Amino acid sequence: MNEHAFDRAIALAMQPDASFLGHTSADYGNMVGPYGGITAAQALNAVLLHPALQGEPVAFTVNYAGPVADGPFTLHARPARTNRSTQHWVIEMRQEGQTLLTATAFTALRRETWSAAEHTMPAVPGPQEVALPGDAPRSEWIKRYEMRFIKGALPTVWDASEASISRTQLWVRDSPPRSLDFASLTALADVFFPRIWTRRATRVPVGTVSMTVYFHTDAAHLKATGSGYLLAQAQAQTFRKGYFDQAAQLWNEAGELLVATHQVVYYKA
Amino acid sequence: MNEHAFDRAIALAMQPDASFLGHTSADYGNMVGPYGGITAAQALNAVLLHPALQGEPVAFTVNYAGPVADGPFTLHARPARTNRSTQHWVIEMRQEGQTLLTATAFTALRRETWSAAEHTMPAVPGPQEVALPGDAPRSEWIKRYEMRFIKGALPTVWDASEASISRTQLWVRDSPPRSLDFASLTALADVFFPRIWTRRATRVPVGTVSMTVYFHTDAAHLKATGSGYLLAQAQAQTFRKGYFDQAAQLWNEAGELLVATHQVVYYKA
Repeated sequence: MNEHAFDRAIALAMQPDASFLGHTSADYGNMVGPYGGITAAQALNAVLLHPALQGEPVAFTVNYAGPVADGPFTLHARPARTNRSTQHWVIEMRQEGQTLLTATAFTALRRETWSAAEHTMPAVPGPQEVALPGDAPRSEWIKRYEMRFIKGALPTVWDASEASISRTQLWVRDSPPRSLDFASLTALADVFFPRIWTRRATRVPVGTVSMTVYFHTDAAHLKATGSGYLLAQAQAQTFRKGYFDQAAQLWNEAGELLVATHQVVYYKA
Repeated sequence: MNEHAFDRAIALAMQPDASFLGHTSADYGNMVGPYGGITAAQALNAVLLHPALQGEPVAFTVNYAGPVADGPFTLHARPARTNRSTQHWVIEMRQEGQTLLTATAFTALRRETWSAAEHTMPAVPGPQEVALPGDAPRSEWIKRYEMRFIKGALPTVWDASEASISRTQLWVRDSPPRSLDFASLTALADVFFPRIWTRRATRVPVGTVSMTVYFHTDAAHLKATGSGYLLAQAQAQTFRKGYFDQAAQLWNEAGELLVATHQVVYYKA
């Protein structure tokens, strides 16, 4: 079988009590524990696979509550409220009875309406004009993505030289390519190196504590985007007293904003 | 007693089962039901008043799951995970057994660290140089805020003339003035008129479905800001298939970013 590593990583088995059993994936390992994006995608998948699901994800917030140990975990997704065409979900991931992650999701049936883009895609060279990084990835999960940095790549020299701006732009897609869906977009929303590393050229300890993903797309639209590149852009707004926030966007090659995403990240400095 | 309307609105009574009893406030009424910002502040207050609370809010996400009827409600706040200096909360608001709102909060003990501003305050005239609106407020909650619009005020003529940009900037504070705290900042995060009204000059039906608030401040810092004005800025990123998202910032008069906030809003168009 040629199953993609991403599909293996987010696979969940439904239990008799309607919770799900999953397992961390070595393919998406980070320096310590799993890549946060894959954990978020696993949590959303508990909603996507739930028999009570109505509609498609519009908003998803995930909170990283504690370290995820290599091994099995359970996911509990509960539809807290079901309306005519919308649904609100509360999700929790646990290992050995301890909560590792809390999340909420909002799903809806979407209809054609008046639509407009306001945050348009910046003018950048196309994906084939941007070189792949030459250095070897430090973590396993980085090998699962093809990243072509336009600006704001990871510093090559950690000399604590401070930049005035933390903006990163890159073309990115799954490696090997895989058709986009809500789970993979969720994982991609967390693809950025910590803004404080870009800004300070110092590898201080960091950890995302909360991430929100807004989807400006639906399944039909994603199918049309296929396995194309996304332009991913992220920038911090403020670093203060141990936490910074990041605002980020993911556009498809046609320049449509598929995802607006934000996160707040702990740092030690 | 000279208690502020905001304090009356967010007051909660602890019940024997550690849930809280609250009541909607006519002072913060919207066209239908309460102002979403006050509902969010009530939900956060269940964490702020909880005897198990550790630290101060850093991230808060609230999901509006159904209409809030005038009258009493219960709030259930549960510390899903308590670490050494951080805590993760899951919150639910109910009326007659039905879930109206789900929320998560992340609280932490914050320490002095290297800090930096990146999204700096735009150059705007000071609050005293900006006139108050002349027209009478349409909703009760609007009377609870002093709003001085610099740009992007509510259209005065609803002629469906489309603007290319939905950005709003205003100076705002509680009316009468009240010292800022986490609850009032949460309410202020929702102070913006729907971006689609600004963009289209058409009063289409709208409703926020999810809002996230990141706090770049702590109690001591807020005390120093007191009851001063905040510069509030909001802009939509994309309107598509019934939902748009908004990115917003609140700075104090000293130009410090106190809040970065985002929301996704349903619209019918």
